Amino acid sequence: MNGSTATLLISCPDQKGLVAKFANFIYANGGNIIHADHHTDFSAGLFLTRIEWQLEGFNLPPEMINPAFAAIAKPLDARWRLHFSEVIPRIAIWVTKQDHCLLDLLWRQQAGELPASIPLIISNHSQLKSIAEQFGIDFHHIPITKETKLEQEAKQLALLREYGIDLVVLAKYMQILSADFVQKFPNIINIHHSFLPAFAGANPYQRAYERGVKIIGATAHYATADLDEGPIIEQDVERISHRDTVADLIRKGKDLERVVLARAVRLHLQNRILVYSNKTVVFA
Amino acid sequence: MNGSTATLLISCPDQKGLVAKFANFIYANGGNIIHADHHTDFSAGLFLTRIEWQLEGFNLPPEMINPAFAAIAKPLDARWRLHFSEVIPRIAIWVTKQDHCLLDLLWRQQAGELPASIPLIISNHSQLKSIAEQFGIDFHHIPITKETKLEQEAKQLALLREYGIDLVVLAKYMQILSADFVQKFPNIINIHHSFLPAFAGANPYQRAYERGVKIIGATAHYATADLDEGPIIEQDVERISHRDTVADLIRKGKDLERVVLARAVRLHLQNRILVYSNKTVVFA
Amino acid sequence: MNGSTATLLISCPDQKGLVAKFANFIYANGGNIIHADHHTDFSAGLFLTRIEWQLEGFNLPPEMINPAFAAIAKPLDARWRLHFSEVIPRIAIWVTKQDHCLLDLLWRQQAGELPASIPLIISNHSQLKSIAEQFGIDFHHIPITKETKLEQEAKQLALLREYGIDLVVLAKYMQILSADFVQKFPNIINIHHSFLPAFAGANPYQRAYERGVKIIGATAHYATADLDEGPIIEQDVERISHRDTVADLIRKGKDLERVVLARAVRLHLQNRILVYSNKTVVFA
Amino acid sequence: MNGSTATLLISCPDQKGLVAKFANFIYANGGNIIHADHHTDFSAGLFLTRIEWQLEGFNLPPEMINPAFAAIAKPLDARWRLHFSEVIPRIAIWVTKQDHCLLDLLWRQQAGELPASIPLIISNHSQLKSIAEQFGIDFHHIPITKETKLEQEAKQLALLREYGIDLVVLAKYMQILSADFVQKFPNIINIHHSFLPAFAGANPYQRAYERGVKIIGATAHYATADLDEGPIIEQDVERISHRDTVADLIRKGKDLERVVLARAVRLHLQNRILVYSNKTVVFA
Repeated sequence: MNGSTATLLISCPDQKGLVAKFANFIYANGGNIIHADHHTDFSAGLFLTRIEWQLEGFNLPPEMINPAFAAIAKPLDARWRLHFSEVIPRIAIWVTKQDHCLLDLLWRQQAGELPASIPLIISNHSQLKSIAEQFGIDFHHIPITKETKLEQEAKQLALLREYGIDLVVLAKYMQILSADFVQKFPNIINIHHSFLPAFAGANPYQRAYERGVKIIGATAHYATADLDEGPIIEQDVERISHRDTVADLIRKGKDLERVVLARAVRLHLQNRILVYSNKTVVFA
Repeated sequence: MNGSTATLLISCPDQKGLVAKFANFIYANGGNIIHADHHTDFSAGLFLTRIEWQLEGFNLPPEMINPAFAAIAKPLDARWRLHFSEVIPRIAIWVTKQDHCLLDLLWRQQAGELPASIPLIISNHSQLKSIAEQFGIDFHHIPITKETKLEQEAKQLALLREYGIDLVVLAKYMQILSADFVQKFPNIINIHHSFLPAFAGANPYQRAYERGVKIIGATAHYATADLDEGPIIEQDVERISHRDTVADLIRKGKDLERVVLARAVRLHLQNRILVYSNKTVVFA
Repeated sequence: MNGSTATLLISCPDQKGLVAKFANFIYANGGNIIHADHHTDFSAGLFLTRIEWQLEGFNLPPEMINPAFAAIAKPLDARWRLHFSEVIPRIAIWVTKQDHCLLDLLWRQQAGELPASIPLIISNHSQLKSIAEQFGIDFHHIPITKETKLEQEAKQLALLREYGIDLVVLAKYMQILSADFVQKFPNIINIHHSFLPAFAGANPYQRAYERGVKIIGATAHYATADLDEGPIIEQDVERISHRDTVADLIRKGKDLERVVLARAVRLHLQNRILVYSNKTVVFA
Repeated sequence: MNGSTATLLISCPDQKGLVAKFANFIYANGGNIIHADHHTDFSAGLFLTRIEWQLEGFNLPPEMINPAFAAIAKPLDARWRLHFSEVIPRIAIWVTKQDHCLLDLLWRQQAGELPASIPLIISNHSQLKSIAEQFGIDFHHIPITKETKLEQEAKQLALLREYGIDLVVLAKYMQILSADFVQKFPNIINIHHSFLPAFAGANPYQRAYERGVKIIGATAHYATADLDEGPIIEQDVERISHRDTVADLIRKGKDLERVVLARAVRLHLQNRILVYSNKTVVFA
């Protein structure tokens, strides 16, 4: 509908005139802003903004936008990322044995909900290979043991580079990544099957059942070296009762997991998320 | 926290440079924007924005802001409203016999959640007079019959003028206002005890019960000449089951009504709502 | 976990001793009740109950349960249905062009969430044939025009009989069934893409957008001759904002539709739903 | 509507015939059951039930019900509690400085939503004394320091006995009770301002803000010696965003707290809650 667009995600120390300066940059070059959203965290003294504009009629050629904007941004001590809607990100989905999040993401990608391609599926087990085949996606079975973890991570990293992957989605990948891996490939979204920070770690549904909570949840977050401690992107919840067994929690939780993960991936792909202080600003 | 602020609510035909022009107006005059949010309705070709900035350090005296902004806005064919945080709006609450929304609003005003004064309560019955007294608020009992409606509305209108009322909140006022009244005093928020457009009109809980819905709701909207057809500001819902009688729906609905109405009034008082095409844009 | 079970769904005029009488019937024959739930609608003078018990150790052979229970139920003027967990219901899914509800149901059936077989898919278009093939399910393309509707319904009915179908699920089947058809095959669950009774009929998302509602919903109900007027089984909702276009509502609505429909189908298959007065009692 | 009723809350080891035996006890004595709900925890081998019946026409005089039922219950190794709707429980509300939960409970009691009397308010501060006076309720100011805690708890306990209190509601009472106190007076409902087990302990809103969660919650639970570890009765949640400051979380949380606490107190007063294994069964 909007043709090709460019999007700037900017964060910088708060000061007067930021909205004007950034908007002027677009306007002065003939651009039409179709989305602009700003947030000021007064306690952190930080200004964060997302600006998306149509490239049609914009006088700067795409390759000149970054250097031109740098002239404005650097004096403001700003950090920024520039995205073009025509550059389609490439996703690798990592799974173990459960198929619900994987299928959900593949369906949504086919339905046009996720502006990305999915050329690669990695699993530490082989059960979901047939799904990969059915969708015509390369599947790599990389088993993990405590002893082989680091060398297998090296293989995984090589695959990500070989396939030109921009984003890893851990769609119920039941392995912990090493701090080293996360540092080398920081664009990772994970789905955790609880309402974090409640029930971080293993077996959250079993523990939710034992604690007798009346609501369960799921959390999508960027992966960090500390398990389940990364910046939260999206959460949702579902009411339960004493009638629900652990199996019921797992079943109901699957619906939460796939919706929450899909929302988070979509927000990321639309460049709507800025991270600071281990939190996210979501310009939804 | 932010000291005195001014807020502009603007709508105008969409065109290039609007974010820049409006932000420049603030920046050029030394203002610090603390909130700016924009929305473009592409199908309507309309740009809508809310800009709030600190008056401290702003070089234009308050009385000059409007004429100065007009020089920018008129060529853009814009419509706008200017609000100052130091001008505390005056609310009249209208009730019939039910007290839950009234008490809720009064508690919230005392707790500092509603930036307004409440000098006037009007009712077509006398039951809630003691609440008015307890809070030290003038109470006017203006009974309505089919025959006296128009002349009583004239009295109501005179009271609104006498008390300098900016906003009327119909907090379960079980009377329909005439089209003439709504035209003369357009700032009216109503709470309807259903999830509009379902169950517009009378006895929504009874009808929800008979229809066997599994969720009930409440809707806060601006009052218009057509009953329950005004622009919706806020809605919320609550799950019910076959175990719930009509009395249970009414009881559960009360909690919805008071929360939904309070949110709508607060959003209005913070000048976060723009109306167009019988819809609202809520810059929350 | 519970082995083979039998389930009685009973409704009868309210009177003393019903819980005792029905429970005694199970106990006297050596049965172990694993679920019993009751509801009394005092205004309707109606008692409704669901009792499920283990067949292991039950002294009556399955074929004798119905006649034995009739001796108790008839004097009470009760209506009842008896189900055996070992009898797996057979579902026909009807679709038009949208695949999200179809895929979701097929996936859940494979995942063991729906205790049923799905031997038949009927569509008035041919687009979803490949999905049927992929899952190994017979697909019948039966186009509908105003002129051919009745004769095509005869074909549809013949197919339902040929395949021994117990339940029809209208998974976004965008055609209205004739009153005659609904009478001949009453076990039909439909998903409507709005929060009924709001936006019954065509184009609910477009109309929700135009009305400016802040929440959208979906409704699963039994189909009746009056479009969108049948007994509601399940509803759910999702918050939206002015930023959501009609396309966004459709996208968000899909997630509601598939979850709401799946819940309703599962409740039906577990024999948890009793209908009376165009309403449902859901013993969840 | 239902006249005087009696309610039995029973838990016992699971075995055949329990529904029949308990229902027969009511029926054989001429009672009309108006609510019966059962739950079996198969993993715990436990059967739990709530049975409420009308006393009109019941052949046993109230004082004979307990001994008569004991003859049935003891051989089953059952534990039970018997409640009469005519015995109105007496509540003491404990507060510190925040008034929202207190006002809400007092208003609901006046509105007839809480079948209880509220003769006593205890606070470790004096700020809310005027509310107590306004509602005509005795207010006792019992300040607590680390040194005086135990002796002050003795005073509190004496007050509970003097006023014949059946239930203590901690309506934002910001003090921890000693294990000894909780043992001596076990009927205590507390509201915690987080979605437990997330953010147990102090300053949950501050910590929720820092963690960057997207949803906040509130939890009503029975108080136990371990802080925030008691059986959960009710929880609810509210969506937040990066725009919400800690002050916004506190404000939004207040609405959650008062609704969640009120629901829990009402469920308790209606004798709908059974506790086992540090969890609740809520027969709602």
